[in-house]
Amino acid sequence: MAIPHAAPNEVVDVRPLARAIREDDSQLLIRTEHLEVFRYALPAGKSIRQHSAAGLMIIQCIEGRISFVARGRTQTLAAGDMLYLDDAEPHALDALEDSSLLVTILLRRA
Amino acid sequence: MAIPHAAPNEVVDVRPLARAIREDDSQLLIRTEHLEVFRYALPAGKSIRQHSAAGLMIIQCIEGRISFVARGRTQTLAAGDMLYLDDAEPHALDALEDSSLLVTILLRRA
Repeated sequence: MAIPHAAPNEVVDVRPLARAIREDDSQLLIRTEHLEVFRYALPAGKSIRQHSAAGLMIIQCIEGRISFVARGRTQTLAAGDMLYLDDAEPHALDALEDSSLLVTILLRRA
Repeated sequence: MAIPHAAPNEVVDVRPLARAIREDDSQLLIRTEHLEVFRYALPAGKSIRQHSAAGLMIIQCIEGRISFVARGRTQTLAAGDMLYLDDAEPHALDALEDSSLLVTILLRRA
């Protein structure tokens, strides 16, 4: 989470990095009261054990390919694939290739 | 808005259409209680006069190039550019090329 997040109306680059990906390529892109968007960078072979987001989550694969497990189902997401999960649904994932994901989290309402 | 929106954990294709774009390529992709995501398809030359979304809005350019006006500033967004606007901020846009945008709207809280 290396750079400060964007201000309103400020253009943010979410293009593929198109190079070897390191975990520290992850970046918080947008943070508002109710919503966060970040780029999640996953080198090939990186696994994220089952966990839950802080609220509804949208994942968009920007580059690479991941195996995504939720609701008892394993699916492959490649660049251009998106899905969402309801509030705090448990999920896990494995990077099948160097991958980056755009993750949007709608923070749970008080 | 031709197809039904996705269920949770259902993969949605947000790749570029990579062909001539028609307005009826627009699609609602995700609709939940508090959030909507749609692909907004804009043929070259299409203008959208100033208006406001129903809440905070994120725009991600998937393909093409648009001129985007908000907060007294005109910016060009190309594929891979993203920005957000605060709750119901007025904006206008022109499609400089055949374009499609991924638009996420966080519906205003009661």
